[in-house]
Amino acid sequence: MTSSDYTRFDGRAVDELRPVRITRGFTTNPAGSVLVEFGNTRVMCTASVSEGVPRFKRDSGEGWLTAEYAMLPSATAERMPREALKGKVKGRTHEISRLIGRSLRAAVDLRALGENTVNIDCDVLQADGGTRTASITGAYVALADALAVLQQRGVVPGEPLLDPVAAVSVGVIDGVPCLDLPYPEDSRADVDMNVVMTAEGRFVEIQGTGEHAEFSRSELNELLDLAEGGLYDLVDLQRAALDAGLGEAVTLGEWN
Amino acid sequence: MTSSDYTRFDGRAVDELRPVRITRGFTTNPAGSVLVEFGNTRVMCTASVSEGVPRFKRDSGEGWLTAEYAMLPSATAERMPREALKGKVKGRTHEISRLIGRSLRAAVDLRALGENTVNIDCDVLQADGGTRTASITGAYVALADALAVLQQRGVVPGEPLLDPVAAVSVGVIDGVPCLDLPYPEDSRADVDMNVVMTAEGRFVEIQGTGEHAEFSRSELNELLDLAEGGLYDLVDLQRAALDAGLGEAVTLGEWN
Amino acid sequence: MTSSDYTRFDGRAVDELRPVRITRGFTTNPAGSVLVEFGNTRVMCTASVSEGVPRFKRDSGEGWLTAEYAMLPSATAERMPREALKGKVKGRTHEISRLIGRSLRAAVDLRALGENTVNIDCDVLQADGGTRTASITGAYVALADALAVLQQRGVVPGEPLLDPVAAVSVGVIDGVPCLDLPYPEDSRADVDMNVVMTAEGRFVEIQGTGEHAEFSRSELNELLDLAEGGLYDLVDLQRAALDAGLGEAVTLGEWN
Amino acid sequence: MTSSDYTRFDGRAVDELRPVRITRGFTTNPAGSVLVEFGNTRVMCTASVSEGVPRFKRDSGEGWLTAEYAMLPSATAERMPREALKGKVKGRTHEISRLIGRSLRAAVDLRALGENTVNIDCDVLQADGGTRTASITGAYVALADALAVLQQRGVVPGEPLLDPVAAVSVGVIDGVPCLDLPYPEDSRADVDMNVVMTAEGRFVEIQGTGEHAEFSRSELNELLDLAEGGLYDLVDLQRAALDAGLGEAVTLGEWN
Amino acid sequence: MTSSDYTRFDGRAVDELRPVRITRGFTTNPAGSVLVEFGNTRVMCTASVSEGVPRFKRDSGEGWLTAEYAMLPSATAERMPREALKGKVKGRTHEISRLIGRSLRAAVDLRALGENTVNIDCDVLQADGGTRTASITGAYVALADALAVLQQRGVVPGEPLLDPVAAVSVGVIDGVPCLDLPYPEDSRADVDMNVVMTAEGRFVEIQGTGEHAEFSRSELNELLDLAEGGLYDLVDLQRAALDAGLGEAVTLGEWN
Amino acid sequence: MTSSDYTRFDGRAVDELRPVRITRGFTTNPAGSVLVEFGNTRVMCTASVSEGVPRFKRDSGEGWLTAEYAMLPSATAERMPREALKGKVKGRTHEISRLIGRSLRAAVDLRALGENTVNIDCDVLQADGGTRTASITGAYVALADALAVLQQRGVVPGEPLLDPVAAVSVGVIDGVPCLDLPYPEDSRADVDMNVVMTAEGRFVEIQGTGEHAEFSRSELNELLDLAEGGLYDLVDLQRAALDAGLGEAVTLGEWN
Repeated sequence: MTSSDYTRFDGRAVDELRPVRITRGFTTNPAGSVLVEFGNTRVMCTASVSEGVPRFKRDSGEGWLTAEYAMLPSATAERMPREALKGKVKGRTHEISRLIGRSLRAAVDLRALGENTVNIDCDVLQADGGTRTASITGAYVALADALAVLQQRGVVPGEPLLDPVAAVSVGVIDGVPCLDLPYPEDSRADVDMNVVMTAEGRFVEIQGTGEHAEFSRSELNELLDLAEGGLYDLVDLQRAALDAGLGEAVTLGEWN
Repeated sequence: MTSSDYTRFDGRAVDELRPVRITRGFTTNPAGSVLVEFGNTRVMCTASVSEGVPRFKRDSGEGWLTAEYAMLPSATAERMPREALKGKVKGRTHEISRLIGRSLRAAVDLRALGENTVNIDCDVLQADGGTRTASITGAYVALADALAVLQQRGVVPGEPLLDPVAAVSVGVIDGVPCLDLPYPEDSRADVDMNVVMTAEGRFVEIQGTGEHAEFSRSELNELLDLAEGGLYDLVDLQRAALDAGLGEAVTLGEWN
Repeated sequence: MTSSDYTRFDGRAVDELRPVRITRGFTTNPAGSVLVEFGNTRVMCTASVSEGVPRFKRDSGEGWLTAEYAMLPSATAERMPREALKGKVKGRTHEISRLIGRSLRAAVDLRALGENTVNIDCDVLQADGGTRTASITGAYVALADALAVLQQRGVVPGEPLLDPVAAVSVGVIDGVPCLDLPYPEDSRADVDMNVVMTAEGRFVEIQGTGEHAEFSRSELNELLDLAEGGLYDLVDLQRAALDAGLGEAVTLGEWN
Repeated sequence: MTSSDYTRFDGRAVDELRPVRITRGFTTNPAGSVLVEFGNTRVMCTASVSEGVPRFKRDSGEGWLTAEYAMLPSATAERMPREALKGKVKGRTHEISRLIGRSLRAAVDLRALGENTVNIDCDVLQADGGTRTASITGAYVALADALAVLQQRGVVPGEPLLDPVAAVSVGVIDGVPCLDLPYPEDSRADVDMNVVMTAEGRFVEIQGTGEHAEFSRSELNELLDLAEGGLYDLVDLQRAALDAGLGEAVTLGEWN
Repeated sequence: MTSSDYTRFDGRAVDELRPVRITRGFTTNPAGSVLVEFGNTRVMCTASVSEGVPRFKRDSGEGWLTAEYAMLPSATAERMPREALKGKVKGRTHEISRLIGRSLRAAVDLRALGENTVNIDCDVLQADGGTRTASITGAYVALADALAVLQQRGVVPGEPLLDPVAAVSVGVIDGVPCLDLPYPEDSRADVDMNVVMTAEGRFVEIQGTGEHAEFSRSELNELLDLAEGGLYDLVDLQRAALDAGLGEAVTLGEWN
Repeated sequence: MTSSDYTRFDGRAVDELRPVRITRGFTTNPAGSVLVEFGNTRVMCTASVSEGVPRFKRDSGEGWLTAEYAMLPSATAERMPREALKGKVKGRTHEISRLIGRSLRAAVDLRALGENTVNIDCDVLQADGGTRTASITGAYVALADALAVLQQRGVVPGEPLLDPVAAVSVGVIDGVPCLDLPYPEDSRADVDMNVVMTAEGRFVEIQGTGEHAEFSRSELNELLDLAEGGLYDLVDLQRAALDAGLGEAVTLGEWN
C-alpha cells in the first residue's frame, strides 16, 4: 500500500496537520500566555521572566531559559494521580520539560537577554497526542510576548528573540509514515518521532523511537520530509498569531 | 461611615458579587468539566468517577468523594514554584482540598452513589481572590454532570445528586463588611470568611479568620447576612447552568 | 428534647467543660513549657524564641510567631504511623498547625516583639478530642512565659504579650448543642465547631463544619453562646495559671 | 589522678547513676506506657500490640518487635527542626531506633508471642544525655505491661516476656571512666559507650566509640565494669516498678 | 576544512572509535554481569531476572525489561552529590534509564520471555563521555548471559534473545562530524547525537540535540553515516565477547 | 567442641582472614581510588577533597571528613531496589556511613588538614559479608592517596595523615568465635561484632550485637583477641599497598 492510498481514522491525509489554533493573551498574569490547540490537544503555555540567573550562569553576562511541563490530572481519558501528591515527578515529565527547555533556548539570544531568566510553563488541559510538540510550538509565541514586554520595560540589553522554533510529531502507523499523530495513532505507532526545527529549516532536536519496530534509513528520511512540511506551516501560523491581536484566535485548517 | 456609602476599588456595592460565569463541557475527557469564573478568578473544575472506594469505606455499601485543589504556577501575579518539583504540597493546598471535599460531600447521597468514588479536581488557571469558593461553586456543576453520566450508564444504585451547594467569601475591609473579595481586597482584609451553604440556606462550613483584627458577634452577623444574599444568587446560577447546554456559558452580572 | 434534659455519656451538662488543668514549667529547656489537660486530652505546649525572622518579614521591624502541632504515635487508642517515617505530613496536621499559629499571633504585638521569632510546639501526648483547642489554650500560657523571659533578658523592644486567647470546641450531638466534645462525642457529632476568642470576647477564628448534617443560623447562634461561656472560664484559668508558680498545677472543675 | 579522686560536675561518684525514676501507666491509650527519667532526661516509652507480622515474618509462627525513637523538637536546649516537616529522618534517629528494637527483641520469646507485632515508641520529652539507654530501660517495663495485657486477653500462645534488659552509658571524661553521662559530660567525652545487658549479666549490645580519642583494652574493661554495676541496679529498679502499682513512681537515688 | 584533515585532541580519526573492551562475568551475583569500557568510560552492566511482571503487563503472557542507570558519585572529575541522599533523582538520570530500557527491549522477544522481568542496571564507575551508549552496548551482553541462564534453568518458554543492539554517540565539533565523543569533545560539541541500532542496521532510537547550534539535513546524514560505521564494529565485538569465556576481556582497537 | 576443632564451611581456621587484596588507582578521577576485596566482597573506596568545610566547622581552622556507603543494586544475591528511586535511604545505610566516617576521622589530624573536606565514598560492587569493615580498611588507603595529592599541591597546612586504621568483623558461629565472617556465616551468627583499631592497637569503635543470643564477658574477650590478630595483619597489608605502585594489586592469603 502506498502512503497516498492510506486512510487515517480521522480522514486526514498522511501529510496533513490536525486543525491548529493559537490564542494569545489567554490569561493576564504572566508576561506571555498562550492557549495552543492541535485538534483536541490543548496546552496553556506561559512565559514569565524574573531577574537574575541560576548559579551556573551567574556573572556570565548571559540569561537563561527553563521550562516545566505538566499534565492536569483530568487531562487524559483516564484520570492520572497528581504528581505533587505522590511527591515524585515521573521520568516522562522530566524528559519533556528538558526537551521544551532545550528547544526554546534555540529561540533566544541568551547574551541579548542579559542576566534574566525566562520560565516557560506548559500545562496540558486536555491530552490527545502530541502534547510536547504542541507545547513547544505554543511556547514560542508566549516567549515572544514576554520578551516584547521586557523590551518595552527597557530591561534587556539587546534583541533576545530569534526566529521561530516549532515542533511536530511524525510516526509510522500500519507501515505508513504519517504527520501529527493524535492519541489513537500514537498509542499504536511502530515508530514515533518528534522533530523540532527553526524557521530556516535547521533541526534543533530529533527524537525517534522504535519501541514496537525499528526503522530503516529510508523510513527516517520519509518521516523527516513529512515533518519539514508540517513545520513550515506551523512557523507561518506562529508568525500570523504574533501579527494578530491579543485574545484573537488564529487558526490553521478546518475547525468545526 | 455606613456600608452603603463605602466605595469599593472596583465600583461594586458592598453586597454585590463580581460577574460570575459557568461554562459546562470545558474539556471532554472527564465526566464533568466546568470552567467557573468570578471576575478574573478562573478555575477548571472536573469530576471523574472510578469504581471502588478507599479502604476505610470498603464494604460499607457507600461511595466516597474526594477533592484536590491546585494552582498552576503561572496563575498568580508573581509565578509560584511548582509543588510537584519541590516534592512538598503546601499546608494551604491541603487545607483547601479538604474544604472542597467536605463541602461537596454535602451534595452527594453516598449511599445512593454505591461503592464508587468521585474525584473532584479544581485547578486554578488564574487567581484573583476567592479561588476556593469559586472552586466549590463550579465543582457542584461538574459533579452534577458526572453523576448524570453515571446514571445514564446505570452504574449507580440510586439518585446520588442532592440540592446545590455553593460558596462565597466575605470580609471586613476598612471596617466595612463586603461580599466576594478579589485579591486586592482579600490581601488587606481585617477579617476573611468563607461560607458554604446549601440551596435551603443551611450551612455546610463557616471559616472565619481575623488575622489582622478580631471580630465581634455583630460583625459576624453582618458578614453572614451578606454571604447568604450572594449564595442564593449563586445557587440560581448553578441551576441555570445545568438547564443550559454543554459548552454554553451562563453568566450573572455585567461582563465586558 | 430540650438541651437541659440531655444526658451526656460522661454525665456533664451541655454547657459544662471537662475538668481542665494547666501546669507551667513542665520541661525546662524551652523558654515556656506547659502541660495542658482537658479531661484525658493531654498536650505539651512549648514556646521557644530565636533571633531573626523568616524572609518575608525581614527588615519589617516586626517579629513572627509560627506553630507546629503533632500527635505522638501512641497518643490515640489505635497507634498511628509516624509522619516523619512516612515522609509526609498529613493535611490535618498542617491545617491545625496553621490554625494554632494564626490564633496565637492574635496574642502578640509583633512590632513590640522586634525581629524575633517565637516557635510554638504542641505535641499531643494523649488524645481524647479537642486537641487543637487545648493546644491553643495551653500555648498562650507557654507564650506568656517565653515572652517574660525575653523581657527579662532585655531582648525585646516593647511589651509584646497581649490579652489571653483561648479556644474551645462545640458541636451538635443527637441534635443537641454541647460544649467541649471528647472523642466519643466528637466522632459522631453532626456539626463540629472550633471557636477561638480573646479575653474581650472578640473572635479570632470560627471554624464550623457540618460533615454529617448542615446547621441553621439559629443552631450556629446556640453553639456560639455555649462557646463564649466556656471561653470566659478558660481565660480566667489561664490568668490563674500565670499568677501561680512554675510547676504548680492550676485546675478548673472536678478532677479525681 | 585516680578515678576515686575525680570530681564530676554534678558531684556524683564515677560509678554512681543519676537519680532514676520509672512511672508506669503514664498515659492510658497504649497497652504499656512508661515515663522513665534519668536525672533531667525524660522519655515516654510505650508498647502497642497489633495482630499480624511484617512480610518477612509471615507464616513463621513467630511474632516481631519493632521500635521507633524520636526527640520532640523542644526536648533540647536549642530547639531542633521537626523531622516530619523536613521529610527526612536523620541517620542518628534511625540508628537509635534500630538499637532499641534489637535490644528489646532480646527480652521477648518471639515464638511464644505468636504472629503479633509489638511497636515500641520512645519519645524524648526532655534530653540531657543517655536518651537511648533510658529508652531501652523504660521500654522494657512498657513491654512487660503490654504483654501482660495480651496474656489476659488470651491472645498470645505462650509466655513471651523474658528477663529484664537494661541499658546504660559509660564514657571517658578527662581520662577518667565514668558511669551514666549527662549531656555536659557526653558532649566532651573522649570515649562514649552504650551497654545493653540482660538480668543475667550477658551482653545484648556493646557500642563503643572513640571519636576524640581511641581507647585501650584495659580502658574498655574498666568501662564494662562500671556499666555492669549500674545495670544490675537498673534491673532491680525495673523489677520494683513492675511490682508497684500503675501510676506509682519508683525511684533509685536521691531526687530533690 | 574537510573532515579528513581534522585532528582530534586524542589523535583519533573522525570515524574512529575509542578502544573498547567488554569483560563478561565481572561480578558473580547477577545472572549477567559485564564491565564495558569505551576508553576511560567504564560501566558495570548487570542483568537480573525475577519472576512476574509489573501490573500493566499482568496476564499478558509477555515479560518485561526495565533498566536503571546511575553514576557513582566519584565517577566524574568533580564529585557529584549522591541522588539517594538528596531524595531526588535527576531528570537526566530518568531520561537515560528510559532510553536504555527502550533500547534493550528491542533485543528481547517479550512473548518468548514469558511472564518474567529483566532488570538491567548500568552503574557508571568512571565517566568520560558516552556513558549511555556504552551502557546499552554492554547491557546487551549482560542480557544475553542472563537469558542463557534462564534457558538452562528451563524457566522461559521460548528463545527470548534477539540479535544484538548497540549504541554510539556522534557529534559535531568545530563544525566537523565525529564518532564517539569523550567528555572533552562532548562538553563543547555543537550537536550531540546518540544512535541505537540493531545488527541488521535498523534504528531503535535516534536522539539528536543541537543546544549550541542547529544542524542541517546534510549534517544529519553525515552523522548517521559515521554512527552506522561504528555500530557495525560494536556489534562484532558484542558477538566476539559472547563467544569468548566468562572473565576474558575482548577488545577493539589499541589499548595501552 | 574447642575452637581449634571447628571446621568452617570454607575450610578456614577460626582465626584466619579470607584472602584480601588492595588495588590502588582503581579509577582515575578521584584523588584516591581503591578496590578492596575480602574474598568475594568487593568495594570501591574513593576519597575526594573539596575546599571549605560544613557550617558547624566553619572558622574552626579545622577540616572535616565525611563518608557515604552504598550497595549497588546488583551487589547481592537477590537484587535490591535502588534507594535513590525509593526516595529513602535505609537506616542500615545511614548507620554504616556514619561508622565509616567516625572511623576514618581517627586517621586524620583535622587541624593539619586545614579547612578542607574529605569525602569518602564506599560503593559495594559485590557483597559477601563484612562490607563495612572492608570499606574502612580500603578507605584508609584511598584517604592516604588523596592526602598525598593535597600535600603535593601544597594545599594543606600540615601532615594530616595519621597511622593506619583498619576494621574486621568477628562473630560466634555454632558457639565458636570466628574471624572475618562471609555472608553464609554472618547471616546465621549468634553474635556479630565489628572492631575498628589503629595500628597501635587502640580501639576506635567496637560494635557487638547479640541478636540471636547474648554473649558473656569471656566470649567478648575471645572475640576481641581474634579481631586484634586479624587487624595487625590488615594494617601490614595497608602499608604494603601504600609502598607498592598505583594499579598494582597487593594481596594477603591465597587467591586462586
